[in-house]
Amino acid sequence: VGTAESPDPRIEHGLAALLGRDQVLPGTVAEFLHDATEERGIAGWADAIVLPRSADEAAAALAWCYERDVPVVPRGGGTGLAGGAVPCGGVVLSTDRLQAVRSFAPELWRIEVEAGVRTADLRRRARENGLLFPPDPGAAEQSHIGGNIATNAGGPHAFKYGTTGAWVTGIEAVVPPGDVVQVGGVLRKDVAGLDLKRLLIGSEGTLALVTAAWLRLIPAPESAFPVVAFFPDLETGCDAVGSVIGNGVVPAALDYLDEGALRLAARSYPGQVPVGAAFAVLAEADGSEAEAASVRDDLVHVFEGSALAVETDVDRGALWRWRDGVSLAVATARGGKVSEDLEVPVERLADAVRGTVEVGRRHGLTGLSWGHAGDGNLHATFLVARDDTSGQQAARRARAELFAVTRALGGSISGEHGLGLLKREYAEWSRPVAALQRQIKAAFDPKGLLNPGKKLPPDDPGSGPRL
Amino acid sequence: VGTAESPDPRIEHGLAALLGRDQVLPGTVAEFLHDATEERGIAGWADAIVLPRSADEAAAALAWCYERDVPVVPRGGGTGLAGGAVPCGGVVLSTDRLQAVRSFAPELWRIEVEAGVRTADLRRRARENGLLFPPDPGAAEQSHIGGNIATNAGGPHAFKYGTTGAWVTGIEAVVPPGDVVQVGGVLRKDVAGLDLKRLLIGSEGTLALVTAAWLRLIPAPESAFPVVAFFPDLETGCDAVGSVIGNGVVPAALDYLDEGALRLAARSYPGQVPVGAAFAVLAEADGSEAEAASVRDDLVHVFEGSALAVETDVDRGALWRWRDGVSLAVATARGGKVSEDLEVPVERLADAVRGTVEVGRRHGLTGLSWGHAGDGNLHATFLVARDDTSGQQAARRARAELFAVTRALGGSISGEHGLGLLKREYAEWSRPVAALQRQIKAAFDPKGLLNPGKKLPPDDPGSGPRL
Repeated sequence: VGTAESPDPRIEHGLAALLGRDQVLPGTVAEFLHDATEERGIAGWADAIVLPRSADEAAAALAWCYERDVPVVPRGGGTGLAGGAVPCGGVVLSTDRLQAVRSFAPELWRIEVEAGVRTADLRRRARENGLLFPPDPGAAEQSHIGGNIATNAGGPHAFKYGTTGAWVTGIEAVVPPGDVVQVGGVLRKDVAGLDLKRLLIGSEGTLALVTAAWLRLIPAPESAFPVVAFFPDLETGCDAVGSVIGNGVVPAALDYLDEGALRLAARSYPGQVPVGAAFAVLAEADGSEAEAASVRDDLVHVFEGSALAVETDVDRGALWRWRDGVSLAVATARGGKVSEDLEVPVERLADAVRGTVEVGRRHGLTGLSWGHAGDGNLHATFLVARDDTSGQQAARRARAELFAVTRALGGSISGEHGLGLLKREYAEWSRPVAALQRQIKAAFDPKGLLNPGKKLPPDDPGSGPRL
Repeated sequence: VGTAESPDPRIEHGLAALLGRDQVLPGTVAEFLHDATEERGIAGWADAIVLPRSADEAAAALAWCYERDVPVVPRGGGTGLAGGAVPCGGVVLSTDRLQAVRSFAPELWRIEVEAGVRTADLRRRARENGLLFPPDPGAAEQSHIGGNIATNAGGPHAFKYGTTGAWVTGIEAVVPPGDVVQVGGVLRKDVAGLDLKRLLIGSEGTLALVTAAWLRLIPAPESAFPVVAFFPDLETGCDAVGSVIGNGVVPAALDYLDEGALRLAARSYPGQVPVGAAFAVLAEADGSEAEAASVRDDLVHVFEGSALAVETDVDRGALWRWRDGVSLAVATARGGKVSEDLEVPVERLADAVRGTVEVGRRHGLTGLSWGHAGDGNLHATFLVARDDTSGQQAARRARAELFAVTRALGGSISGEHGLGLLKREYAEWSRPVAALQRQIKAAFDPKGLLNPGKKLPPDDPGSGPRL
């Protein structure tokens, strides 16, 4: 393995000799060296980029690297928000060319896809056949289903439908020292053995490279009606979220924007943001037409007691496109942002939202958030330009404080983005739970070459770099 | 550790000294030595039975045993169908006295219960508060939620709602050498770390003793309407199941009884079984009243093209009580049965049902089945009296053949009951998948004392007893 300044050319050449020139790129091809944390100025370096066309090629590449102690960084669509796919040397193993839909049986609600299939394409393919693949993480046009599995990605509709893992019945993966394994498959249930499939889901490429997956689909709901409510303040808005749940209403999605996020995103909102709005709730009612209408009416009923305005006529497609663009709208406001993905018990949402603003203020930063209210999942964000060195430093201090606030609220430092490179140093586990994770890692990857420095408890806590 | 004939009294006395006389029973108390496989004549033996009142007491008991190389067999309600809780010496660690509901927040759709809470009690408690805990495995009046988690238990309504694991957000467990750990908790999403919670779910007490769980609930559907259809033959019935799915209808449950099961259970059916019925489909439509009615009408529409009769006026409670009693009705017909829990792709259901009858016939046995049609999950059964030695031998040969048939259909030898003691010898894993399971087991339980001989790949395949 080389260095950031001078990658080792023998790695690129060796892999090219093994797999063919076309499957290997120099480690300097920038688009494979960062993920969405580039907005914080984070990028890695690699000795080579490998683009296998099959699980067997991926296994061969892994075996080659494993024999030579070369680190391997699995990579999907590169939309991660925790640096999970950012390499620190070694080989980037990309799922870009694993694009086949291996089988699709719409009449059985099943599809088998390779890991590089884009999540939005998968959703479209299902939809064209009257089916739904429910997970809808942001950046679905870029993200790969393999990456979504590796992070157990969520999204607004996870409130009703669960995260990506709920829809995976089987995984094909490449594990060290270079084996292709299958765990699960088309079967809807299977308890013959430990649930390795569920262990791989959300493991962020530290145990295996996912190369294909068997997915469950469901019949697409006949109707889906958005309901957007604007509230005069945070507390009223969060109370309304609590009332939806407390009244037993089950929306498909229950998202929110706080005052700061709403201000920055309001201009492009495909409807009317009322004057004085300081909190927005984005809900959706789905099901048969009668069912969706009934849930919509329930939502309106809950909201209209305290909302400034309740909108039901906003265009659904436009609404979710706008919602998906909130991250970008916020990032461009000040030329950059530092976003964290916090999870708290839903009844502590208001505390976490307020805490984000207050922590920011203490560090001279604008703090704001949006996210999946019903799941208690905040995208807590500090606005700071990429090139603002002192601002970035302040953001680093602020995020450590934010994690402490989250913990005090009984929360987790990651609900759906993962720990990746950026958060592992902040994770806290009990001694036995940390030890179990390390030993499971060692079972899969005895040399510690798969996505090193990511996700898992460091052997020596506190020693690593805090990015 | 003693022997079956003479348990080691030092174990009972040592644990009684540690935990108090009232928490320890002699290893000869028969009710703790078998599970539902008693109908096959299977029972174990133990040196002592421990009934901890808290996770800390359970941890102390485990630590005491672990230090002295005494095997520990976790035990829930003892309703298992694979011998997972049958001890072969050592200590039975029972969840009988872990009965507290630690917290219940109906307005947040959450409950935290100790492992010994009976599943039916949990479901009743939820229902009294307008909520639903969807998993409904058989024997829910006896089974413990901890055992349901340890086996990832299913049930008829798993078709729409998923198995037990889908409803568990956190687990408290005791792991070797005697630590209480918490993985997950009240949070709806959490990706900070490997998903140890999901690894414990379905691990059948081989990695940990589950002592408590945080569960998700959902608002109870307003209405649930049963639809029972009787068909003239297997093929027509299975085609109807396929048509439900192919037409995009989503029932809450989609169960079946084949001809043999229907014949034995017909007498107690709470409605009319038409003459000539050779296959029954038990479906349920749920949701708001309008939604449930609409799904019910869709089901009727699909069924009535080919059914001998379609019933929608059968009492729902009576129907599912009857369904829950099918196992007993079948078992009493010939004084015993050998049941297997097979899982196949749903489109191979007819092949698996037919295969069960044919395999039985080849061995001079009556083969029949019932189960969760929509999930492709069969309870494939041979009728044989407990004391019929040659019949039991024939059943042993037949089940090996049945597993081969299941594999040829792309199936699994267990969909929801687990491997336990009875099936681990028949499980087949690829070399790396078997190795990973062994290493994970070693990470949790380096001495191999937790539920030895169950679930996991034997170190020396083929060497163990085939019960």
